[in-house]
Amino acid sequence: MKGKSLAVVCVSGGMDSALTAALACQDHHVAFLHANYGQRTEAKELSCFHALADHYDAEDRLVVDFSDLRQIGGSSLTDPALPVREAEPEDGVIPTSYVPFRNAHILAAAVSWGEVLGAGAVFVGAVWEDSSGYPDCRPEFYRAFEEAARVGTRPETSIRIVTPLIDLSKGEIARRGLAVGVPFEKTWSCYQAEERACGACESCRLRLRGFREAGATDPIAYHPPTST
Amino acid sequence: MKGKSLAVVCVSGGMDSALTAALACQDHHVAFLHANYGQRTEAKELSCFHALADHYDAEDRLVVDFSDLRQIGGSSLTDPALPVREAEPEDGVIPTSYVPFRNAHILAAAVSWGEVLGAGAVFVGAVWEDSSGYPDCRPEFYRAFEEAARVGTRPETSIRIVTPLIDLSKGEIARRGLAVGVPFEKTWSCYQAEERACGACESCRLRLRGFREAGATDPIAYHPPTST
Repeated sequence: MKGKSLAVVCVSGGMDSALTAALACQDHHVAFLHANYGQRTEAKELSCFHALADHYDAEDRLVVDFSDLRQIGGSSLTDPALPVREAEPEDGVIPTSYVPFRNAHILAAAVSWGEVLGAGAVFVGAVWEDSSGYPDCRPEFYRAFEEAARVGTRPETSIRIVTPLIDLSKGEIARRGLAVGVPFEKTWSCYQAEERACGACESCRLRLRGFREAGATDPIAYHPPTST
Repeated sequence: MKGKSLAVVCVSGGMDSALTAALACQDHHVAFLHANYGQRTEAKELSCFHALADHYDAEDRLVVDFSDLRQIGGSSLTDPALPVREAEPEDGVIPTSYVPFRNAHILAAAVSWGEVLGAGAVFVGAVWEDSSGYPDCRPEFYRAFEEAARVGTRPETSIRIVTPLIDLSKGEIARRGLAVGVPFEKTWSCYQAEERACGACESCRLRLRGFREAGATDPIAYHPPTST
C-alpha cells in the first residue's frame, strides 16, 4: 500500500457506494465516512457500512450524524408522515425521497475530514444518468463543490471530488461490481424496510433492474411476493 | 412586512453576524440559524443567538449541532489540547482557530433549510479583508458555494448567498452596527471565556480594535486588566 495517497470514501452502504469503495481501493488508502440523517433505514445502512469497511480494510472510519437534516425534514426519507413512493423514477420529476441538498452536507464532512487527514480525494458514488434525478447528484454540482473546496480550504489542501459512477447505468454498476468482487450481500438499498427489502420502493426497483440488466441475481432477501 | 421575501441568516452571536442580521431585516423576513460544533464558548454564543433572534423578531430559528466537526477536530476552537492563540492575526498565516471547512457545513444547513422554507437568500457575516484569514471566509468560496447551491437544489429553488460584510474593516462593522442600533451588548466574540471576555485572543483583539477605530466603547465586560 506504500506510496498510495489517501482518499475519503462516502459509503452509504448501498450498491453504488460499495462499487465506489472498491474502485477507490485500487489506487488509494481509504478512510470511510457514513452519514446518519434520520433516514428510515439508518440502522441497516450503518451495519452495511461497517461490514464494507471491514471488507475493504478502511484504516479510519467516521460516522456523522446530521441532526439538522432530521430537523429540517422535507423528504419522505426523513419524515414519517410522507409516504415512500413505490415506483421507478419518472423523467423530470424530483421524487419525494429527495433530501434537500443532503449531498452538500456529506461532502462538507468529507472535505473537513479529508483536510485534517491530508487526503487527496473524496470519492462519492453519485449516479446521475440512471437515477432518481436528485439535483445534488448532478455532475455540475460536484464540479461546483470541488471548486468551493479548492478555494475554501488551506492552500496546501488539494482535494478532488471523484464520482466514478456518475454516468453509469444500474446494469453497468451491478456488472462492474460483480467483476471486481463487490460483496453485494453486504449492501442495502431499500428505503423503507430493514429485515427484507420491500422490492417496491424506487430504490429497490432501480437495484433489481440493475441486477436484471446484468443477468445476475441480487443476493439480498426481498419480501415476497416481489422477486428478481 | 408584506411582500418581503424570506432570508435565512447565519447567526453565530458575534458582532459580525449581529450586523448582518440587522441588514438582512431591512429587506427580508428572517429565519435565524445557529451552529454548535464543539466550540469552547458554545453556551454563551447560543444565548446571544437567542437574544438576537428575539431582538430581530426571527420568525423561525434552527439550532444545528455539527457533531462531525467535534469528531474531526483539527482546530484550537474544538480541541481542548490546542491552545487558543493570544495575538492579532498575521498576514498569510492561517491561525489554529481555523475549523476545517466549517463554513461549508453552515451554508449546507442554511441552503437545505432555505430550500424547505422557500427562502430567496442566505445571509452570512463572513469578513475577509480584516479578518483571521480563514480560507472559508474568502469571497471566492461564497461564489463557488452559491453555484453549488444553484445546481444542487430543485430547479425552482433560487438562493443567493449574501455576504454584506466581506470587504468591511472591523472599525466599519462597529460603526455601521452602532448606526443601525445593533445591540452589541447581546453579542459575544471571545474564543475562550464565557463570563467576561478574555481581551487577549485574536477574536477579542479584532473586536476591541473595531470599537477603538469606531471611537466607541464595547459594552460587554472584559476580564481585567485588559480594557478598551
